[in-house]
Formats: sequence, C-alpha cells, structure tokens
Amino acid sequence: MRELRDRIAREGRNLGRGILKVDSFINHQVDASLMMSVGRELGRRFAHAGANKVLTAEISGIAPALTTALALNVPVVYARKTKPVTMPENAYCEEAPSHTKGHFVKLLVSPEVLRPSDRVLIIDDFLAHGHATKGLCNIVKQAGATVGGIGIVIEKGFQNGGKILREGGYKVESLAIIDNMNDNLIHFK
Amino acid sequence: MRELRDRIAREGRNLGRGILKVDSFINHQVDASLMMSVGRELGRRFAHAGANKVLTAEISGIAPALTTALALNVPVVYARKTKPVTMPENAYCEEAPSHTKGHFVKLLVSPEVLRPSDRVLIIDDFLAHGHATKGLCNIVKQAGATVGGIGIVIEKGFQNGGKILREGGYKVESLAIIDNMNDNLIHFK
Repeated sequence: MRELRDRIAREGRNLGRGILKVDSFINHQVDASLMMSVGRELGRRFAHAGANKVLTAEISGIAPALTTALALNVPVVYARKTKPVTMPENAYCEEAPSHTKGHFVKLLVSPEVLRPSDRVLIIDDFLAHGHATKGLCNIVKQAGATVGGIGIVIEKGFQNGGKILREGGYKVESLAIIDNMNDNLIHFK
Repeated sequence: MRELRDRIAREGRNLGRGILKVDSFINHQVDASLMMSVGRELGRRFAHAGANKVLTAEISGIAPALTTALALNVPVVYARKTKPVTMPENAYCEEAPSHTKGHFVKLLVSPEVLRPSDRVLIIDDFLAHGHATKGLCNIVKQAGATVGGIGIVIEKGFQNGGKILREGGYKVESLAIIDNMNDNLIHFK
C-alpha cells in the first residue's frame, strides 16, 4: 500500500534495536483518514474470507481493526489485557511475551462475544515475532471458532512472526513489509 | 441520540453499584457501524468548535474518538497509560483515580503530538466522576493548548463529573445521559 509506505518513509523513525517509531500517525497520534484507507485495503484483501467478526488486541490494534470492520460491515472485538469488572470469570485467556514491554501480557476475550460459529479476521498494527498474533489465533481456537485470515498494517519482515504464521497455513496480508532497518534506515520489501 | 439509547436499553446490563455493562457493542465488542454514527453525531455537535485535534484516553475511548476525528477530518491522539519505548521522557503526565480499576492510572501524551497552538476536542466513552476527563483537560493545559469541547458517548448523570466540568465552563455534549440505575434498571434523562 503505497500511501502507507510513503508515510512510513517520511515520518517513521528507526530508533535502533528493530524499534520503529510511527506514533505521529499510527499508534499515539492516529491519522484517521489514513486509517480509513488502511481499513478499506485490508477489507478489500479479505473481502472473500467470509469473516463475520474482526478480532484484535488492545491498544494500538483497535484503530485499524475498527476501520477494517467498517469496511467489511462486521463487529470488532478487542482482546483486553486486564480483566474489566464487566468480564465473566470464564473468559478465554492467552499469555504472550511482549518484546517492547519486556514482560508477558494477557489477552482476554469473553465467550459472550466469540462463538464457535464465528469466522474471525485477526487484525493488528504490527507483526514482529508474532506472539500477540499467535495468542489471538489461540483464543479463536479456544472458542472453537475459525481464523479466516490475518491482516497486518506493518510487518517487520526481518523478524520471524510472518514466516511462522504463513507456514502454519494462515493467510497473512501485510500492507507494508519492512525488509530491514539497517544503517539507521527503513528498507521496504 | 436515539439509536444509542435504544441499544443501551436493549443490550446494556445494570451490574449494580453504578456499573453499566455495554461490552457487546461499545467497549469489548464494538458495533463499528453504531460507532460511526456516534462519531458523526459528536462531529455534528462540535462542527463549529474549531478543533484541529481529538484527544482521548486509551483504551475504550479510541473507537469513538477515531470516528469523531474522521467526521471532523482531524487527527486523533490517545493518551497512553504506560510509557511506550517510543515516547520521549518529557511527556505530559497526569494521574487519575480509576473507580472501575480501583487504583490510579497515568495519562501520558508526547509533546510531539500536542502543541500550544492546538484546539482540542476531548472524546471519551464514559463520563462518571470525570477524573479521566479532567486529567485530559489538564494535559491540554500543560501543553499550553486549548480545550474546544468535551464529547461523551455515555454520561452517568447520577455521578458528578458532568456537573463539575460544565460548571468549570466546558461545553460537554453527551449522546446518552443515564439519570439513575435504580431498581436494576437503566433510566435515561
């Protein structure tokens, strides 16, 4: 997706150690119009996936997941990382290591919003080692539901999450794939 | 906003102690189409507020803030509750007590995305005691920017946040105001 790649090239910052700063348009300040384009494009790529629900993880997955859900005219569920008082005790739960946070995070989804009959499109802003995405896939499995595909805004192609998920049989579509972040630059595939 | 009130009346659950469960369409599973209507209506009510930016707090403020930002064609910033590695050390910071979480939460905004020249529309999903909303107002003040208004999806009219903010001179618009939650019911104003 050229609009997205151009924006990353212009405003993204390579902070070293594989950390890409895109918080002026993706995950702190959000360019709402760009995010609508992202949702439309992910919706287009999964138009025939038969998904009746979008699933993401709070926090920064919410914006692209919401716009993709809008494009597909389905509801979106975001997995919570801490259990709200409104969530029943029998919530589906996965633990995933967070490389940027340096500890394990929980992913919690209520059985009230994820049913065995659901065909789920998983959306996230970043795919790196893939721990969070795999956690979401496992939650879908726990619910007895089906993963209809995985849509990603920015994939770090130099980390192995995408490879593992594709080899695992999932259809993964990433709107921008970064080949490497060598020489303090951002190189796309 | 009738569509919203009808939905709350139909699907909302009064869990007692002032807790309203709306996680099947607002803050766990999100009805993307309803959320677009919410954004359009908040955008309409603040069409002449001159806001060039929307500000909310992660997590459940993101969806209505994004759709409002879309309606107004401005970017949206969500305050973070934990400092990401990409955020500079000089972030604006407020602490607000969370009644549903039972502890204090931080609200952090980078000076890179909030400037003195900004006129900011604050959006949140709930207004109860108003601590989070006041925290966001204080962050806008810290940045030397201006609050152009406060838009809320659901206001708990039986708690005092709305009263305090309106008496403080802020224009507060709430799409659904709950008068009381007595008798295990949900009564609107």
